[in-house]
Amino acid sequence: MSISLHTDKYQLTMMYAHWKNGTHTHRRSFELFFRSLPFGNGYAVFAGLTRALDYLENLHFNEEDLAYLRENCPGFEATFFDYLRQFRFQADVDALAEGTLIFPDEPLLRLDGTIFELHLVETALLNFIGYQTLVATKAARIRHIAPEDTLLEFGSRRAQEQDAAIWGARATYLAGFDATSNMLAGQQFSIPTSGTHAHAWVQDFPCELEAFRAYAHAFPDSSVLLVDTYDTLKSGVPNAIQVGKELKAKGHQLVGIRLDSGDLAFLSKQARTMLDEAGLTETKIIASSDLDEETILNLKQQGAQIDGWGVGTKLITAYDQPALGAVYKMVAKENDSTWEPTIKISSNPAKISTPGRKTIFRIIDRETGKARGDWIASYEQLLKEEEPLTLFHPEHPYKQKVVTNFLAIPLLQPLLRNGKLIAKLPTLLESRQYHQKQLQLFWDEQLRILNPEEYHVDLSKQLWEQKQKMIQDIYKEVHR
Amino acid sequence: MSISLHTDKYQLTMMYAHWKNGTHTHRRSFELFFRSLPFGNGYAVFAGLTRALDYLENLHFNEEDLAYLRENCPGFEATFFDYLRQFRFQADVDALAEGTLIFPDEPLLRLDGTIFELHLVETALLNFIGYQTLVATKAARIRHIAPEDTLLEFGSRRAQEQDAAIWGARATYLAGFDATSNMLAGQQFSIPTSGTHAHAWVQDFPCELEAFRAYAHAFPDSSVLLVDTYDTLKSGVPNAIQVGKELKAKGHQLVGIRLDSGDLAFLSKQARTMLDEAGLTETKIIASSDLDEETILNLKQQGAQIDGWGVGTKLITAYDQPALGAVYKMVAKENDSTWEPTIKISSNPAKISTPGRKTIFRIIDRETGKARGDWIASYEQLLKEEEPLTLFHPEHPYKQKVVTNFLAIPLLQPLLRNGKLIAKLPTLLESRQYHQKQLQLFWDEQLRILNPEEYHVDLSKQLWEQKQKMIQDIYKEVHR
Repeated sequence: MSISLHTDKYQLTMMYAHWKNGTHTHRRSFELFFRSLPFGNGYAVFAGLTRALDYLENLHFNEEDLAYLRENCPGFEATFFDYLRQFRFQADVDALAEGTLIFPDEPLLRLDGTIFELHLVETALLNFIGYQTLVATKAARIRHIAPEDTLLEFGSRRAQEQDAAIWGARATYLAGFDATSNMLAGQQFSIPTSGTHAHAWVQDFPCELEAFRAYAHAFPDSSVLLVDTYDTLKSGVPNAIQVGKELKAKGHQLVGIRLDSGDLAFLSKQARTMLDEAGLTETKIIASSDLDEETILNLKQQGAQIDGWGVGTKLITAYDQPALGAVYKMVAKENDSTWEPTIKISSNPAKISTPGRKTIFRIIDRETGKARGDWIASYEQLLKEEEPLTLFHPEHPYKQKVVTNFLAIPLLQPLLRNGKLIAKLPTLLESRQYHQKQLQLFWDEQLRILNPEEYHVDLSKQLWEQKQKMIQDIYKEVHR
Repeated sequence: MSISLHTDKYQLTMMYAHWKNGTHTHRRSFELFFRSLPFGNGYAVFAGLTRALDYLENLHFNEEDLAYLRENCPGFEATFFDYLRQFRFQADVDALAEGTLIFPDEPLLRLDGTIFELHLVETALLNFIGYQTLVATKAARIRHIAPEDTLLEFGSRRAQEQDAAIWGARATYLAGFDATSNMLAGQQFSIPTSGTHAHAWVQDFPCELEAFRAYAHAFPDSSVLLVDTYDTLKSGVPNAIQVGKELKAKGHQLVGIRLDSGDLAFLSKQARTMLDEAGLTETKIIASSDLDEETILNLKQQGAQIDGWGVGTKLITAYDQPALGAVYKMVAKENDSTWEPTIKISSNPAKISTPGRKTIFRIIDRETGKARGDWIASYEQLLKEEEPLTLFHPEHPYKQKVVTNFLAIPLLQPLLRNGKLIAKLPTLLESRQYHQKQLQLFWDEQLRILNPEEYHVDLSKQLWEQKQKMIQDIYKEVHR
């Protein structure tokens, strides 16, 4: 199935209207960004780029697509579809690396190309990157609360359709989860997979002990037994212990038990004691039951004896904020080979875009190794590491700080040129490791899940002044 | 891409353990249902069946799948994969029709087959049906508030990845939306598509009037002009009126204007007056801006002059409750060609399943034409329309009513036999019409979006007594 039609109709009507108007080859620059952080977190985790680049590289309209459009776009002239037939995506794309910690209003992707191709791709890019970034951010919050524990993504059944299950699982692995239950995600992305048995397994046998024995017979070295089908402490744990001892006697080992209901703090402490007293000290306790970072934090505070967490619904749907609200705005027009900044005005000041093609530097203090802030500047602006850099707050310009002895890491990297990939993309595992390194650049105070310290993201003086001037000019024009 | 691996790992380990144990051909019956209504609504709208049946009919493991499993399931014996190679889904499936109004604990699908195949499909069925039912229900709430207006699904960019955009769009159309912006959904499901232009179109021209003229030139008979790029009432609407008059002079017509920000009540009333005074009485006003049933209800109460609504994020993500929480439980085992009921126990009474293979009748009062309640009975139980039927409340048995002069419509229909489709499925348009007819069976008090009257869903006395007895028996067994 071609996914080139995974776009909003208004992209196609605008493409047609530009073509009809003769303006379709005009070159423009668009940026993709988001406006506010989800979940009250101090940062977001960039994800979805691999999917986005694959989509852009393969974008074309096959005969089936063209036949559909011809029939369903009555106002369009027939020769337009011939133009669409030879269409390929040929823009230049710069983007951040997946796993990068990102902040509001930072360009995550910049696309330079024809207005025609840049309209077409908006919907799919927002759809892919918005969701994957959202779920990666949620996963990072959970990893922050349980840095040493095993974290398992168990959300497939509650995900919003198949792609969310698959790409969501990938996003959670990127942000530090250890495995997913979804086998298709495992296959597609080489992610470790995890899972043992459900209540229905137990229910299918005359008694729980028999069910556990049959399961352990099939998996003598990898069984995690679900102990809450009838009564966790009176039936499940004693039966699991019985089977654990039988396994041990044959030179095997009961890997774990899983708690899926009830008071997880109380039950896990009781179960731990019972397992230890039976000599099954190496048997782990896994919990799953509508978990998220808040419940895990509270369970840990209560001293729950849980080694691994299966997290489902709340993670894969980003339950407490199921949309990131990413946007995609034109920032410049090419005139006679130079880029002229453009602005998107709104009655809501937060929705006014920052004009111009930009670059982002992450400013690292050479002494502490920690990030002092991000510096967003015009693409052409130079940054000399030898000279002190004044960072000022984009909303409150009187707040400023001077930074010296820093390393300036450019975050946007050239990836597509004329629609072709020119860089080697990292593997998912490399991106996962890069994400962990990114975290080390930040202070704990910026990473905590409640009321984090705000990270400093600065517009260069030039960019800020240019934006203010353009806002004034437009208001003068409109209210003249 | 084969989607047979779109399943949780524990389904595969249980399949393997049953195979290893020699119990994999045992026949079981499973039901798919949900436990509580989303959004405080009085009903849900069943959706996702078409996708589910297509998945079941095509289920098999290709060589790529088998190679992946062989490599990533270390405990599995090699001959298991030969067994998987010849696997096809051969169960019997009964289900409700898409568009049916559904209630908690009602079996939406019943599957009779081997434990092997019934484990495999759980994850995908919950994933498809849970999400599509959720979004169809959200869409029905919005349609309820705006029965006569044009409703447009505009959520693709904020959907949780591509499948959610596509299948979500289908679910909204099923539940009464008029069109989607997503062209791929339009192509896949023959749904009308809708959309005209974005702010970026306006921004790309030296001035708004020029942008509107160029757009109207391309679409003289289908333009909806977005009027809030600079200033809705001072710039957007006057420029749209100018272009509307120019179109009229040439025998065309400005179809509409779209408001996408600001105070939609105030702006729409002002814009309506301005359009009417300019003689553009036929030009419609469309609104889009983070809408849902609550905002639309409030805008209508304020007398907003809005003819059509573009609804995005809040609809496609089911923002206020992004998961339905559907479940899939074993209800019976086949022993010597008879079905023996099974029960899933839980410390949470709401999570105890109702044992046995069931049937549902919707009891329609012949006098009013309205539904009196649903009657859930054992599959074998007969219902005679000539005899009075006593419905009693499943949680509060003292609440009962006697129904006479009724029509009993069986809701579960046989669809797959030995894994093959034996019925002609309705088209999406037919399902959409069926949904509208379903709504007519219910009282307004049951359909309202806030504090709806509870619809009566009754277990037959036999089913209820059987459930109570099985609960007692299990507790005796466990606590003996």
